[in-house]
Amino acid sequence: MSAEPFRVGLLGLGNVGSAFAELLEERAPQIAALTGRAPLLAGVLTRESGSFDEILPHADVVVELIGGIDPAREYVLAAIGAGKHVVTANKQLLSQHGEELFAAAREHRVQLRFEAAVAGVVPVVRVLEESLAGGHIERIHGIVNGTTNFVLTEMARGASYADALADAQRRGFAEADPTDDVTGRDAAAKMAILARLAFGTPVRLEEVRYEGIEQLQGDDLLYARELGLGLKLIGTAERRDGGLSVRVHPAFLYAGHPLASVSGPFNAVTVESDAITEITMSGPGAGGRQTASAVLGDVVSSMRPTVLPAAPVRTLPLVKDFESAFYLHMEVADRPGVLAAVTQVLGEHDVSIKSVVQRGMGEHARLVMVTHAVLESSLRAAVERVASFTFLRSAPRTIPVIEEEFV
Amino acid sequence: MSAEPFRVGLLGLGNVGSAFAELLEERAPQIAALTGRAPLLAGVLTRESGSFDEILPHADVVVELIGGIDPAREYVLAAIGAGKHVVTANKQLLSQHGEELFAAAREHRVQLRFEAAVAGVVPVVRVLEESLAGGHIERIHGIVNGTTNFVLTEMARGASYADALADAQRRGFAEADPTDDVTGRDAAAKMAILARLAFGTPVRLEEVRYEGIEQLQGDDLLYARELGLGLKLIGTAERRDGGLSVRVHPAFLYAGHPLASVSGPFNAVTVESDAITEITMSGPGAGGRQTASAVLGDVVSSMRPTVLPAAPVRTLPLVKDFESAFYLHMEVADRPGVLAAVTQVLGEHDVSIKSVVQRGMGEHARLVMVTHAVLESSLRAAVERVASFTFLRSAPRTIPVIEEEFV
Repeated sequence: MSAEPFRVGLLGLGNVGSAFAELLEERAPQIAALTGRAPLLAGVLTRESGSFDEILPHADVVVELIGGIDPAREYVLAAIGAGKHVVTANKQLLSQHGEELFAAAREHRVQLRFEAAVAGVVPVVRVLEESLAGGHIERIHGIVNGTTNFVLTEMARGASYADALADAQRRGFAEADPTDDVTGRDAAAKMAILARLAFGTPVRLEEVRYEGIEQLQGDDLLYARELGLGLKLIGTAERRDGGLSVRVHPAFLYAGHPLASVSGPFNAVTVESDAITEITMSGPGAGGRQTASAVLGDVVSSMRPTVLPAAPVRTLPLVKDFESAFYLHMEVADRPGVLAAVTQVLGEHDVSIKSVVQRGMGEHARLVMVTHAVLESSLRAAVERVASFTFLRSAPRTIPVIEEEFV
Repeated sequence: MSAEPFRVGLLGLGNVGSAFAELLEERAPQIAALTGRAPLLAGVLTRESGSFDEILPHADVVVELIGGIDPAREYVLAAIGAGKHVVTANKQLLSQHGEELFAAAREHRVQLRFEAAVAGVVPVVRVLEESLAGGHIERIHGIVNGTTNFVLTEMARGASYADALADAQRRGFAEADPTDDVTGRDAAAKMAILARLAFGTPVRLEEVRYEGIEQLQGDDLLYARELGLGLKLIGTAERRDGGLSVRVHPAFLYAGHPLASVSGPFNAVTVESDAITEITMSGPGAGGRQTASAVLGDVVSSMRPTVLPAAPVRTLPLVKDFESAFYLHMEVADRPGVLAAVTQVLGEHDVSIKSVVQRGMGEHARLVMVTHAVLESSLRAAVERVASFTFLRSAPRTIPVIEEEFV
């Protein structure tokens, strides 16, 4: 085959970047057979060597694997401005400056692809952009952070939060500074990107409500298991009242939910719509070679006829309140009338109870409930009143419960 | 928007065709916003009305939902020859005449899309064609027939084969004539299509070994459960000895396999490769509206820049033998020396035993084993010799066991 090679300019040679360079060389013959052009690494920028200005003119596609906002944003905009396709795995950049980049790519008629930015090798970006492009999506639920899913899997087996996190770090599933993972901020960035794809509405990271796993108590997992529930850090993007709710928080799932069986450092995303019922996709959430594989898929796409990023098709207002069932954990002094007092306050706020477990006796009994679906604002109001009862021994804890089951 | 509409010629107005027509009208405004052109139903061919020759000149894409080989094949070839994109859900056609159609589409530079032909709404065709285009896939396992998965799910709950099948028919999960489903032929057609996509090697339906669920015994499911195994009808396409094994047969799975938890009329596909570890995708396997949604996704793709079907990139020989662990069920007279005689014969054929369960006594005891991985040909040879022992009360039964676990 004597066609021109397809020249790849690579920015960043860390874990993913090195794996990508290796994979590209390994697969070049196969890709050449498929597309008619052999991809070729035409320049690499690292912290120590290389020059962006020298790489750019000789690249057909720029692969950005630096991460962070600066200088990644300038490089990506410059590449687009020079008419080069861009492939990136940068969730921070997309969740904070996505619209600017999409608009630039449309203007300069180049592809901007980012499968590796969300959910590792799980091809959710492509499926939302293409397979479901004509679909009316109702809801996305995702386990989009492998670190926290590993930690929760270990906690469900009895490990403490601290031990599970240390274990994740030892095995390379968590960074030395795991703040973005355990606070839910990493998952929030990914949900902002998915919400934009699924609903056509620009969503920035700052607009996503998120809550992490640092405050979870081991005994919440144990009580929940008695109720048939498992705990995951779940990102949600869903239509609500003509608007859009995008959020990340720990949530309980019944065993029949497709995300309930996703364990360890895996990612998974469930897409629901009237027409498809639901699709679930799962796979490893991280790993240099896995992420590099998603990047390579995007590079192959950039060798094919150009599909431009979609313009925002409508703007749904972001709403804060949402409806869910809730798990409610209260440490109480076990006196006559306690359950009656709690259920009366809940009832006054339209919170109805689906199941109750009571454990222990005396001054430190525990009352654990699962409610039927209710507005979060109503639940919060009720819980605030319950918290003021003198028989409460500590602040009540609440965790949403996802009720859908498909199987 | 004053751009020309994108005109859809629809062949077939059955269950899927009607749902597609409805969905197309419903989503036209959204698709117009996304692509710049509104899709419009420009002609419909049914058994009673319409004319292909009148529809063709006015169509930008032809959607073939007639099924079967004739006249679907002539229509699809004529549409491609006239420079029209084609979207089809026709697994028979693709698994028997795929190369002819792909070659025609490449020659006339039109798209030929067929997501709905395999695994319902599960976007496995697109993921194999695009996300994993640069990947070196090792193996695909799929539950690609919803009817048999429903029947097996009911049998695992204690129903008989006949009752479970009748139930599937009552609920609309099985045709009045379920032969293609229960014999594995429907799944074999889908695996031929997936093997072509994953390995670039043309595979015709006639080259796929398949075995259905009609011969399964309820007690196999019960014994298997004691061994921690669940039973599914599994399609496999995998590299083996420089060749390709493509087959469909009932197989046992351990609980940790991603396909083990796929219940009822769902489909799911697991793709394994060194670089991605594994991706699993699941969703409803049938339903008019669900299938129509997959067809619509393909129509939207046909409105975008043309991606031609890939030429076969290499031809792997199809191999018949494969390696697997096996479940082995023998009804035996319980006499001294029986287990020793059986294990000696197995050992002579390199079949080693992982676990054994013995049940009952006297003339109708049962010996149930799971072997370690072994060539199927070796196992068959061993079982043939075991079958000749006078203490055997009926023919031994064997079912492959899939050992991979990812979670």
